[in-house]
Amino acid sequence: MNEKLRMGMVGGGLGAFIGAVHRKAAALDGNIELVCGAFSSKAETSTATGNALFLDPKRVYPSYVDMIRAEKKLPASQRMHAVSIVTPNHLHFAPAKLALESGFHVIVDKPLCLSVAEARQLVKVVKKSGLILALTHTYTGYPMVKEARRLVSSGVFGKIRKVYVEYTQGWLAQPLEKTGQKQAAWRSNPKFSGLGGAIGDIGTHAANLAEYISGSVITGLCADLRAVVKGRVLDDDASMLLNFDNGASGVLIATQVAAGEENNLFIRLYGEKGGLEWRQEEPNTLVLKWPDRPREFYRTGMGYISETAKLHTRTPSGHPEGYLEAFANVYQSFARAVTDFKSGKKIDSAKYDFPDVEDGLRGMAFIEACVKSSKQKQKWVPIKL
Amino acid sequence: MNEKLRMGMVGGGLGAFIGAVHRKAAALDGNIELVCGAFSSKAETSTATGNALFLDPKRVYPSYVDMIRAEKKLPASQRMHAVSIVTPNHLHFAPAKLALESGFHVIVDKPLCLSVAEARQLVKVVKKSGLILALTHTYTGYPMVKEARRLVSSGVFGKIRKVYVEYTQGWLAQPLEKTGQKQAAWRSNPKFSGLGGAIGDIGTHAANLAEYISGSVITGLCADLRAVVKGRVLDDDASMLLNFDNGASGVLIATQVAAGEENNLFIRLYGEKGGLEWRQEEPNTLVLKWPDRPREFYRTGMGYISETAKLHTRTPSGHPEGYLEAFANVYQSFARAVTDFKSGKKIDSAKYDFPDVEDGLRGMAFIEACVKSSKQKQKWVPIKL
Amino acid sequence: MNEKLRMGMVGGGLGAFIGAVHRKAAALDGNIELVCGAFSSKAETSTATGNALFLDPKRVYPSYVDMIRAEKKLPASQRMHAVSIVTPNHLHFAPAKLALESGFHVIVDKPLCLSVAEARQLVKVVKKSGLILALTHTYTGYPMVKEARRLVSSGVFGKIRKVYVEYTQGWLAQPLEKTGQKQAAWRSNPKFSGLGGAIGDIGTHAANLAEYISGSVITGLCADLRAVVKGRVLDDDASMLLNFDNGASGVLIATQVAAGEENNLFIRLYGEKGGLEWRQEEPNTLVLKWPDRPREFYRTGMGYISETAKLHTRTPSGHPEGYLEAFANVYQSFARAVTDFKSGKKIDSAKYDFPDVEDGLRGMAFIEACVKSSKQKQKWVPIKL
Amino acid sequence: MNEKLRMGMVGGGLGAFIGAVHRKAAALDGNIELVCGAFSSKAETSTATGNALFLDPKRVYPSYVDMIRAEKKLPASQRMHAVSIVTPNHLHFAPAKLALESGFHVIVDKPLCLSVAEARQLVKVVKKSGLILALTHTYTGYPMVKEARRLVSSGVFGKIRKVYVEYTQGWLAQPLEKTGQKQAAWRSNPKFSGLGGAIGDIGTHAANLAEYISGSVITGLCADLRAVVKGRVLDDDASMLLNFDNGASGVLIATQVAAGEENNLFIRLYGEKGGLEWRQEEPNTLVLKWPDRPREFYRTGMGYISETAKLHTRTPSGHPEGYLEAFANVYQSFARAVTDFKSGKKIDSAKYDFPDVEDGLRGMAFIEACVKSSKQKQKWVPIKL
Repeated sequence: MNEKLRMGMVGGGLGAFIGAVHRKAAALDGNIELVCGAFSSKAETSTATGNALFLDPKRVYPSYVDMIRAEKKLPASQRMHAVSIVTPNHLHFAPAKLALESGFHVIVDKPLCLSVAEARQLVKVVKKSGLILALTHTYTGYPMVKEARRLVSSGVFGKIRKVYVEYTQGWLAQPLEKTGQKQAAWRSNPKFSGLGGAIGDIGTHAANLAEYISGSVITGLCADLRAVVKGRVLDDDASMLLNFDNGASGVLIATQVAAGEENNLFIRLYGEKGGLEWRQEEPNTLVLKWPDRPREFYRTGMGYISETAKLHTRTPSGHPEGYLEAFANVYQSFARAVTDFKSGKKIDSAKYDFPDVEDGLRGMAFIEACVKSSKQKQKWVPIKL
Repeated sequence: MNEKLRMGMVGGGLGAFIGAVHRKAAALDGNIELVCGAFSSKAETSTATGNALFLDPKRVYPSYVDMIRAEKKLPASQRMHAVSIVTPNHLHFAPAKLALESGFHVIVDKPLCLSVAEARQLVKVVKKSGLILALTHTYTGYPMVKEARRLVSSGVFGKIRKVYVEYTQGWLAQPLEKTGQKQAAWRSNPKFSGLGGAIGDIGTHAANLAEYISGSVITGLCADLRAVVKGRVLDDDASMLLNFDNGASGVLIATQVAAGEENNLFIRLYGEKGGLEWRQEEPNTLVLKWPDRPREFYRTGMGYISETAKLHTRTPSGHPEGYLEAFANVYQSFARAVTDFKSGKKIDSAKYDFPDVEDGLRGMAFIEACVKSSKQKQKWVPIKL
Repeated sequence: MNEKLRMGMVGGGLGAFIGAVHRKAAALDGNIELVCGAFSSKAETSTATGNALFLDPKRVYPSYVDMIRAEKKLPASQRMHAVSIVTPNHLHFAPAKLALESGFHVIVDKPLCLSVAEARQLVKVVKKSGLILALTHTYTGYPMVKEARRLVSSGVFGKIRKVYVEYTQGWLAQPLEKTGQKQAAWRSNPKFSGLGGAIGDIGTHAANLAEYISGSVITGLCADLRAVVKGRVLDDDASMLLNFDNGASGVLIATQVAAGEENNLFIRLYGEKGGLEWRQEEPNTLVLKWPDRPREFYRTGMGYISETAKLHTRTPSGHPEGYLEAFANVYQSFARAVTDFKSGKKIDSAKYDFPDVEDGLRGMAFIEACVKSSKQKQKWVPIKL
Repeated sequence: MNEKLRMGMVGGGLGAFIGAVHRKAAALDGNIELVCGAFSSKAETSTATGNALFLDPKRVYPSYVDMIRAEKKLPASQRMHAVSIVTPNHLHFAPAKLALESGFHVIVDKPLCLSVAEARQLVKVVKKSGLILALTHTYTGYPMVKEARRLVSSGVFGKIRKVYVEYTQGWLAQPLEKTGQKQAAWRSNPKFSGLGGAIGDIGTHAANLAEYISGSVITGLCADLRAVVKGRVLDDDASMLLNFDNGASGVLIATQVAAGEENNLFIRLYGEKGGLEWRQEEPNTLVLKWPDRPREFYRTGMGYISETAKLHTRTPSGHPEGYLEAFANVYQSFARAVTDFKSGKKIDSAKYDFPDVEDGLRGMAFIEACVKSSKQKQKWVPIKL
């Protein structure tokens, strides 16, 4: 039977940033329906949110535990299929675990949780349940990022030798958290954010993007983490040297004190025969650089783009797609997997091309390695999983 | 009572281009619901479309006439509020007229209809009904276009002297219509497209954008229209000199034979004290040029952007928004007006900042003036309304 | 015998703009030596200029007539070979004519002179003398412009259908000539500038560039010339529709009131199979646009660039060349022709790839056609030569 | 008395790359004259070069020692004033030392010499002689680099916190030195190049630029040097973390195996209140980024640019200047100092704004620190001078 994917949400009360983004991304293609939520630990916020979202008040719950329990009891034709978790980092692990153990698929904001230890538990739960967990490393949802991965994998650049990735923001150049700004407040507080500040919030995105496009895994790093703004406990700035398992080396920069930068995620890779460049702020262009022929500018939606990228494209070339479309692509990949699951297929997440629990685990290992490296006098820290 | 705006659709069967765009644009913000449709003149296509869209089969109608009649009889709590018309040009007028006369608001793709005469009728119907008609000149939905209009209107550039606008595409550089490509076929056929080829399809967008940002109206033009590709009846290429009612002059280019161009809508205005530049393919940047100080790059989502533009922005700066978000902004403006209408307010479309029936009328006058000018030996053709 | 090309200069006294540019362009490659000059109608300015340029005071002359007469009497081993004329427009014709008639080659700033009638005379004098006249349409000196011409001529774009060229500046957006600024003063005075304001000063550059790259000749135009700034006699702004002899059509914009623009000469051509784009302010990149494969960015100095362009390149790729190098390329082409002339060869200017007296004649015809078109009510004015 | 600066050259025989660049840079402004040279260790190459450069054959010498000795004996009115040294790295020290000890000013290509020890000797000789030594770190000659330094120093960005500089090239992505290409051959040979490969050739430029703009000195680094192409002895690739004496930290990348890159020197700095960005390949634009107002694009030649930068600008805005003009700016600063020296002034090189022997010493220390860091297991190596 043809039905929409029914989704419940944990977090994302009115005024939250990423919750609204998830909802728009889920809504865009008309095949996912928000049916319930536990939007806030404050009952009135949750209620007001549900109301603003046109939800049945009965399905606006005071807590994720209530939601999962109550939904479980609903008839299959009404019951949600999946839970979207959009809370701060410290509230990813428990709802994800409970949802999976209760038979619900999960799509969760990054980073996956607070530690490698938690991540390993989630890996186990996912495996045991056979259910689907998608992690919203949004940036791998862009068509041109998928094209980049495909091109690297095709060998046109030869063996990849260098990977330079940076994620520079400026919004924390001043102690914004002291003004009561919510986004800044929880991100700079280890209780909600975990071990990592900038490296958790944006460094994991950069590391994930580098691994996704290069098709290689970071095996070691030498990091310099700083709390540039006085009074911060967590890093707001990181620079590091990288090693990859294919022999490539590189540099990763993640900073939130680059005053004047917006959301400048930028990656370049160079192989023996050429290189590529992609910038999130102009996401519909992918630049290929060659020593012996003109630079090529691949553009989203053009006829010569691969089927892989086209699958994640909604408009003809020159009709720019953006962040919400990339985000929606993660939701659509997740939805395709859930649909196949419902029809009884066994799910191999690689096939659906969404970031999964293993990516989440590597993200946690990345954070822990950064923190360790920055504290030690030796140069390199290996990452082993 | 808090309810979604319920929308019916005319046209947009599976495989159509602009119908899917309208649906995504309407769905994005979660407050508009597609409840019914007459998607195609072919019954099976309409049914298949309704099914793919998860619609109640009873509300998938064989024709727009059926849809309007049937919906009118439904209880107010179920009945659609508005009709979205996404058919080729020749099928805008009749459904729009019937819908308005039947008490439904209308949102219709551009150009408004096939002639100034039809447009004048629609102006009358809108006035008489007191209902809302929005025209999807998508490009005025971009936040940076709204910012541009605001800046011009604020006087920072002084009196506007020059307006250069172009819309260059390359997809019709070859006789694509002969291959059976549907989009090319109807656009190059006067029966479906009307008097204008490129000038109707994209020239009206360019003219509308120029008038929107400049706050002035085109009063005359001197046009050179061509059917560059052999065998075409309608123009696929146009260049013209322009006059504006504030004394400014300018140039408008609209071509679909600029091989290699995508969807390059590009506008520049210059006043006594400075100028601005905006390009649709990189829509989140607005360039301000000054003789006596550095160029300024305004960026969507930054704190210094006006409230007007922020109202039409969904993500923080550096998280690029695109064509679908601009399109969704037209839908949201329309939805705000409908909501106010429901609460009994009288609607002044200028206040809601969506292109309306008067813009549609001017678009038709623009097309007719272009065709007239191109055929005559005299230089200028006035546009009077 | 190996000797430098010895050059005399008419105009270019201290404080003049284009004279210093000519001198740097001539000096860059070390094979052209300024040996004498009549730099100003004011004796003391001429003397001071000669002194600042380390010239022998005996060869600093009070007038171009004196210079040409005196140099003619010097022994061949000392005598200048060529005259560089860098005066305002009204002082191009007479010195050029006298120099040629006295046996000296000429390199002269654009536009060639004040009228088609004068230009025709110069064409005759050049033919009769067999000597070389080069016109400094600087912008055709850029390597990427030469590459563009070569690519068009190679047929990779198919038949050219559209030519869009613009030259937008902002420096005359205010009545600068009233402040005593010399450059503005003579350019806005018909006595020194001739019939054309902006169309003479920059429009001729744009027209020349369009003809050079397209390999076609403008055969007709429909122009709208304006004196936007109050009190101006000559045009400071022009827009026009164009026809070319190969059947292409296009648009030319030349304005000096685009407040905030610098020196924005920008050209695009589209053929049946693709197009190209070049912008003078970023001159080392040439963009090729294709419907069916990625855009290509050709870059000065790269290995894949043609020999034609490489001949006019001094540095490896990524070491940007600019305006002075382009200017120097015109001088070097001129110098190559002079060297060949000295060795007894007959000179075919096309072979040396510098703008010549015929280009100058076409420029004058362009100006006269613009002025005529702007005054008449009929649409098109043909250009016949 | 008004005379040109007379220059002799060591190295730069026909076919050499940087010698021709030096000659054009010196010639551009018409106040420096090449009067003699020892262009090659091969007599016939030196002779042919002198001939091609229109030199008096008597002043084309078989060796720099001969040149310096012979010129010393010429009358002051003919004798060269300065020596330009454009040989490979291993031949900088001896001619520079001898020239200074013989009373000639020196302008020498970078890096200064082969070791900190040599550099310290040159520092002493310069001090003792009171003569001028300029080092051609070309990139600090660009007007927008000077503007950047001025802006940082003015405090508009607040305290500088982050410095990211990179110099990526691709020309050594393959073992070009094995093909007999001269530039690649000597650069990859420690005998001619010294301890450093990429870090000496381009890393020193990047480090110098970072120090010049930031006004701070690198105090420590943690480097990863690699010979990516098999068989290389010297590094062709380097990445490193940096510390500066003002408390800033940063990253420096210097690689010659970034296949497809040209000459991509790129720098960004971020202070408490904003940041800047400059890219050598588009050198006439300097981007200022602000959290609370639009990005500003400073452009060479505009009226609002500082006098400091204007002093190093030759053309009006929009007439792009490039690499040769930047190079010529180093020569002009050097020439100004020599002129003042001749008039008896004591020379403070900071005043003339050219890279001097102290910059050269810091460059050598940078190379040695990189090599040391890359070999050790500890993270940081201090740079102390």
